[in-house]
Amino acid sequence: MASEFDLIARHFARPTPSALLGPGDDCALLAPSPGLVLAATTDMLVAGVHFLPDTDPGDLGWKTAAVNLSDLAAMGARPRWLLLAGALPEANDAWLAAFAEGLFACSARFGAELVGGDTTRGPLCLSLTALGEVAPGQALRRDGARPDEDVWVSGQPGLAALGLAHLTGRLTLPGPAPGAGSPAAAASLAGRCIAALQRPQPRVALGQALVGLASAAIDVSDGLLADLGHLLTRSRLAAELHLGQLPCLPAGVDPQVAREAQLAGGDDYELAFTAPAAARAGLARLAATLELPLWRIGQTHAGPPGEIVLRDAEGQPVPIGRRGYDHFG
Amino acid sequence: MASEFDLIARHFARPTPSALLGPGDDCALLAPSPGLVLAATTDMLVAGVHFLPDTDPGDLGWKTAAVNLSDLAAMGARPRWLLLAGALPEANDAWLAAFAEGLFACSARFGAELVGGDTTRGPLCLSLTALGEVAPGQALRRDGARPDEDVWVSGQPGLAALGLAHLTGRLTLPGPAPGAGSPAAAASLAGRCIAALQRPQPRVALGQALVGLASAAIDVSDGLLADLGHLLTRSRLAAELHLGQLPCLPAGVDPQVAREAQLAGGDDYELAFTAPAAARAGLARLAATLELPLWRIGQTHAGPPGEIVLRDAEGQPVPIGRRGYDHFG
Repeated sequence: MASEFDLIARHFARPTPSALLGPGDDCALLAPSPGLVLAATTDMLVAGVHFLPDTDPGDLGWKTAAVNLSDLAAMGARPRWLLLAGALPEANDAWLAAFAEGLFACSARFGAELVGGDTTRGPLCLSLTALGEVAPGQALRRDGARPDEDVWVSGQPGLAALGLAHLTGRLTLPGPAPGAGSPAAAASLAGRCIAALQRPQPRVALGQALVGLASAAIDVSDGLLADLGHLLTRSRLAAELHLGQLPCLPAGVDPQVAREAQLAGGDDYELAFTAPAAARAGLARLAATLELPLWRIGQTHAGPPGEIVLRDAEGQPVPIGRRGYDHFG
Repeated sequence: MASEFDLIARHFARPTPSALLGPGDDCALLAPSPGLVLAATTDMLVAGVHFLPDTDPGDLGWKTAAVNLSDLAAMGARPRWLLLAGALPEANDAWLAAFAEGLFACSARFGAELVGGDTTRGPLCLSLTALGEVAPGQALRRDGARPDEDVWVSGQPGLAALGLAHLTGRLTLPGPAPGAGSPAAAASLAGRCIAALQRPQPRVALGQALVGLASAAIDVSDGLLADLGHLLTRSRLAAELHLGQLPCLPAGVDPQVAREAQLAGGDDYELAFTAPAAARAGLARLAATLELPLWRIGQTHAGPPGEIVLRDAEGQPVPIGRRGYDHFG
C-alpha cells in the first residue's frame, strides 16, 4: 500500500511557479507582492454537514477550493495560494485522483496555486486556507456600508438550495436525472441547480472589479438574508429589500419554495454588496462586461444593526421565515 | 443556545494588533513585512488519530498551535499569524473556553496571533494554518544538506512517545499519577513525558537562531529516524548515526524501550538539522544561550538518498526497527 507521502506526492505536488518553494518541506515559501496586503481565509468542509457523504470527489475538490476563493472574492482580493489539510477515512488512490482533479481545475480557473498541505487519516474532513492580495485600504470589508446606499446581489442565489432539495428527494425539479450528462440535462433547471450546488462559481472577477465601486461586500454562503444581516450588523445599519426587485425566480418550481431558497438557501457563493447610488452606471456596465446579472434589491438606512425588512409592491412588510443556515443554531 | 457566531466571537475574537483586520470578516487582512518571505504551513489534528479523545481541551489548544509553530521553527521563520478551522461535535462553551486558553497561551508565548477561522459541527478535528516570515534565501529547507556535514538533534526526543505509552497503560513511568499537579509530579519522569506529549515546546527560538548556522532542518513530528530520513531524501544524501552520540536516555525506564521511543517516537517537535563542522562552536554557544541541549549525532555522506545507518561503539551497524509514524502506513 502506498504511504501517505507517496500519495500526497502523486496527487497534490504539481509545479508551483507562483511559490519560491512548494509542497514537500515544513512550510511553503511565498514572496508577497511588494505594496499589497494579504487576504487570508480558511474554511472547513465536513462530510454529512457541508456535503453528502457520497458526493463525487471531483465535485468535492472543486467546491473545497471554490468556497475559499469565494471569501477572497468577497474582499476584492486576487487569489494567489492555497494550503490543504485533509482527513480521509482511507488512502484511496482513485478518490484522491478525482478530488485533486476538481481542486486543481477550480484553483487553476481562478488563478490560485496549491503550495502546501497535510493529509491524515480520519473522518472525511477538508480544510483549505486561501491567500490572496489586495491593495492597501481597498479591500471590501463587511463594515464599510453607509446609510442610504443600494443593496445588491449577483447572479441567482437559491439555485444551490434547490439542487440540494432535488438530490435529497425533498423536491423534484424539471429536467433529466442527474448524471445524464447531455447538454439538455445541463441546461435544465435540475442541471443548473445541481451545478450551482456541486460546482459553484466563486465571483472572483466580480469581487476584484467591485473595488472602488462597492462600499462593503460578503459572499452568500449561509443564505442571502443571513449573510446580508452579517454585513449590516458589522456596518451598524438596517436595510429594506423590495420583493419586486429581488432576482427573478426560476420557472418550473413552486414560487414560494423558490423564494425561500433565494432568501435563506445557503451554498450559492454569490456576492451581496452595498454601493452608493453614484456607482449604478458603473455596476450596470460591469454586469454587461462579466455577463453576470447584478440585482439592486434595496437600500441601507440607519436602524437596528442587522435588521432587514422585506416590503411588497404596496410597501407592506412581508413576513420572513428563517434567514439561513447556522452550523450550530 | 448560543449560535456559532456568538461562540466564535466569545472565545476566539481577541484583539489582533498584528493584523490590519482580524476575525469577523470574509478574510483577515495582513501586511507582510517589506523584504521578507512568507513561510506558510497547515496541520490537521484528528481525535483518535493525533490525540486521545478525552484529551484536556487546554492541552489540545496548546498542541494545535504548537505543531504548526514547530513547522515555522523548522524553516527558521518568525511566527506571525494563525488561522483556525475546527469541527466540533457540539458547541460546548466550557470546552471552547479551555481550548481557546491553551491555543492563545501557546500562540502568545511564541509571538503569533489568531487572525481568522471557521468553526463548524462535525467529528472533532482541528486544522491550523500558520504564517511566518523569514529573510529571502535564508529559510532552513530540507534540501540544503551537503555531504560530510554534522547531523544534530535538539532536546530529548522520545519523551512524548513514552508519555503516550504511560497514559495508554502500555508502560508505567516513575512519578506521581498524572494530574497530581505538584512540582514534584511535574519534575518526575512521568510528569516530564506527559508534558512533552501534551504541551510540546516548538523550537521557535532555536529555528530562527539556526539561520546562518544550519544547512537544512526538519521538525521531529513523526520520529527522529523518519523525519531525518525525509531531510536526507530531499537532500539526496545518506547518513551515519553513532549510538554513543545519541541523546542520553531518561533514567527509570527500560533502555531498549527508551531507545526505540527516541529513534521512532513521534510528537516531540524537536529539530533535527545538519550543519558544517565550522558551525560547531556557534552551536555550542547557542545551546548554552537557549539552555537547550544540542546533540551532534552523526554525519551525512553521499549515498542512497534517505539511508540511515546506526553504528555502535565498535562501528558495527545496529539493526533499526520501525522508523516512525506514517498516518497511512
